[in-house]
Amino acid sequence: MPYHSTPLDLAFHALSDPTRRAVVSRLAEGEVPVTVLAEPFDMALPSFAQHLKVLEDCGLIASEKRGRSRWCRLVQARFDEAADWMEAERRRWSERLDRLEVYLDKTREDEEEHDKSV
Amino acid sequence: MPYHSTPLDLAFHALSDPTRRAVVSRLAEGEVPVTVLAEPFDMALPSFAQHLKVLEDCGLIASEKRGRSRWCRLVQARFDEAADWMEAERRRWSERLDRLEVYLDKTREDEEEHDKSV
Repeated sequence: MPYHSTPLDLAFHALSDPTRRAVVSRLAEGEVPVTVLAEPFDMALPSFAQHLKVLEDCGLIASEKRGRSRWCRLVQARFDEAADWMEAERRRWSERLDRLEVYLDKTREDEEEHDKSV
Repeated sequence: MPYHSTPLDLAFHALSDPTRRAVVSRLAEGEVPVTVLAEPFDMALPSFAQHLKVLEDCGLIASEKRGRSRWCRLVQARFDEAADWMEAERRRWSERLDRLEVYLDKTREDEEEHDKSV
C-alpha cells in the first residue's frame, strides 16, 4: 500500500525552504496581498506562486480573492500542529535529562553513604 | 548561484517523514543501538538505514560504534534550532493577535465615548 503524506509531513516539507519560512514569518505579522508579500523576494512571480501553492496545499496558509488582489494569511491550526509536535519532543527530551540528573545525584549520594560506612 | 540548503532547511526536510519523526521521538527518550531502534519499524534495514542517514546528515542525530553495535542519539542543538524557529514565529503571531485585540478594544471604547458625547 503506498504511503500517503500526512498534513504534518507536508507542513514540515513546506518549512524546509527559506523562502517559504520567510513567507510564514511575514504572514505571522498579518495578512497581506500576494503582490506585497512577493516584493522582498528576488524571484520571478511564477516561482514565488509555486512556493505559495506548497504552503497553501499543506494548509499552512490560506488565500482569498478580494477585488483585484489575492490576500494571504497564516492558518494557525496547521502551524500549531507542527510547533506542538516539536515542543512535545523537546519536553520529552528535557524530562529525560531531568530523570537522568536525579538518577546521577542518587547514585552519587549512595556512593558517599557507602564510602562513609566503610 | 545555486542555492545550498541550510542546516535548518535539512532539519525540516528530515522531519517531513513519519519514520524519521518516530526515530526522533524514540531518541528523545535516550540513546539506543540501531538494531533496537529499528525493531518497531516494519521496514527493511537498508531503507531504515537510509532514514538514519538523512537524520545524521542534517545533524539531528549522531551515531557512534561501540563494540559490535552502532548507537544513535539525538543532537539537541540542531533540534532546538528548528524548535526555536517555530516558537519564535508562534510568539510573533500571538503578539500580533494581542496587539489586534488592544486595538479593537480601544476602537470600541472610542466609539462608546463618541456615542455618549453626541
